[in-house]
Amino acid sequence: MASNPTWHLKRFPTGMPTPDDFTLEERQTEAPRPGELLVRTLWLSVDPYMRARLSPAKNYAAGLRVGDLMQGGGVGEVIRSEAEGFNAGDIVLADDFGWQPVTRIVAKTATLLSADDIPIQAWLGALGMPGLTAYFALLETGKPKAGETVLISAASGAVGQIAGQIARIKGLDPVAVAGSDAKLEWCRSIGYRTGINHRTETDLSAAIAASCPSGVDVFLDHTAGPIHDATLLNINLFGRIVVVGTVALADRLDKPDIGPRYLRRIMVSRVRIEGFLLDDFESSYPIARAQLTEWYKDGKLEARDDVSEGIESAPYALVRMLKGENFGKQLVRI
Amino acid sequence: MASNPTWHLKRFPTGMPTPDDFTLEERQTEAPRPGELLVRTLWLSVDPYMRARLSPAKNYAAGLRVGDLMQGGGVGEVIRSEAEGFNAGDIVLADDFGWQPVTRIVAKTATLLSADDIPIQAWLGALGMPGLTAYFALLETGKPKAGETVLISAASGAVGQIAGQIARIKGLDPVAVAGSDAKLEWCRSIGYRTGINHRTETDLSAAIAASCPSGVDVFLDHTAGPIHDATLLNINLFGRIVVVGTVALADRLDKPDIGPRYLRRIMVSRVRIEGFLLDDFESSYPIARAQLTEWYKDGKLEARDDVSEGIESAPYALVRMLKGENFGKQLVRI
Repeated sequence: MASNPTWHLKRFPTGMPTPDDFTLEERQTEAPRPGELLVRTLWLSVDPYMRARLSPAKNYAAGLRVGDLMQGGGVGEVIRSEAEGFNAGDIVLADDFGWQPVTRIVAKTATLLSADDIPIQAWLGALGMPGLTAYFALLETGKPKAGETVLISAASGAVGQIAGQIARIKGLDPVAVAGSDAKLEWCRSIGYRTGINHRTETDLSAAIAASCPSGVDVFLDHTAGPIHDATLLNINLFGRIVVVGTVALADRLDKPDIGPRYLRRIMVSRVRIEGFLLDDFESSYPIARAQLTEWYKDGKLEARDDVSEGIESAPYALVRMLKGENFGKQLVRI
Repeated sequence: MASNPTWHLKRFPTGMPTPDDFTLEERQTEAPRPGELLVRTLWLSVDPYMRARLSPAKNYAAGLRVGDLMQGGGVGEVIRSEAEGFNAGDIVLADDFGWQPVTRIVAKTATLLSADDIPIQAWLGALGMPGLTAYFALLETGKPKAGETVLISAASGAVGQIAGQIARIKGLDPVAVAGSDAKLEWCRSIGYRTGINHRTETDLSAAIAASCPSGVDVFLDHTAGPIHDATLLNINLFGRIVVVGTVALADRLDKPDIGPRYLRRIMVSRVRIEGFLLDDFESSYPIARAQLTEWYKDGKLEARDDVSEGIESAPYALVRMLKGENFGKQLVRI
């Protein structure tokens, strides 16, 4: 069969990953085995969780070994099916697309997408893992009450953009933290009340205090690091901090773990800090997906993608996303 | 009326408090006003929360000002009553005893103790604020499931000793952290399975791992500091850390707040860290007190006090308790 350039892990990154940590190898496309699909990759999803898979440290996602094929969420078109219920031409969504133009997928891990007017890449963003994360992290773990102030870091990112809009729909008061004024302007346009530029503010805690005059009730923490610490100084009595991601630690996963610093504040204000993993809510995916799809079709959820072109660009897309240089959900179009 | 030596705050401590931060002044006993009781102090309670009151920093307990009378929980005998329902000779419990032999108490803040065979000082320990704290922090905030490993720091202290015994009664697996082998031996005698000496172990995380082979499910954190950090390295999936106290920070309340450090661990293991304040459970005190009293009368709750003699000793008792030199619930007998 045809040649198929595939990305493999060359070495574990030290500090911030670089494209040189990956190697593009020409491989033959393999034939699908029984129960598998051969799929032409259309979209690859690039997500912050991937950083921790590039490390030998304990994590919830199984770590890669050096030499392994890079994998991630994707959407593609079935070329050949060796599984019942799937046919050539079907569009499928799965978590384990290889970073390659043609990939084999275990059919039972694939979801058949119906032919409607939803752009297929939305299933990697607003209606996919990031959208579900926003939904459950905000509503189930954050447990916000009407009118409460919800601070969201990486606010224009894949999860943050959906979380801010859900907060608005639910009558909450969403405030954005993002890394550029352009991102913050867009955040306001989709429903955030206001925002904080963490790259230009010299006193992050004071900036949060100014933007959240009633304090912070729920904090969706997608970054860890200085934004986390500054928020803890502004958290209200019975405030909730949902630790969804730690992308600000992307350049230091091989160093000792850090933050949060304010343990007395946690106690005095009876703050709850809780780690979040989407998988824990799997039994409720159908309800959440139906709700997200309804909002999406009603035009209540806007979604912004940051699209990188071609399989060659995949590790570059990963690195720029880890550095916060993306503006919207990071995708690779093949 | 008679002379009444009373302790006042001389200055805010820098670092670890010393007795020199307090001043003993000869004051006249004041006559009780309407609605007040004049009470002869029998027992004073000395508790870790007092450290944070000796600081201008934000806290849940109202801070003292320099010159203020030191106050705390106590039990005493009514000398003269200006309030209905109380008579001379009654034994009362209240939170706002002055550190003085004779004190005025607002009657509506006082609880009349019935004449039963419970030692009156137990109302400052096993059946009082520390016992209630143990009960709610473990059972309500910690939400342990049968068989789970519960690690408890300051395990022989006022709260820890009761928490360990409740854990045993409830079919949990309690493990002690304390500062001497004698304390740990006593902890084992009252129901802890085993214990860790945090003063002699060179690798606290490894010691916790060895004592908790199934990991730590619930951690009652009475200290913060290195024990907190070492426990986070051993916390199980969905582990719960109840931040009850921060006595290990007693010498650094005027420095930047620290810990916990392991934010990725919190996320990856979906740990919940939650601040605790007893007041939040006030509506359930009667249920808890009834349960604690039943266990106590049935001999299921052992209580060890560390008694300091005389009003002159009060600040010395506070400092030794903050340093962990006490062995059991710290009291002052007047």
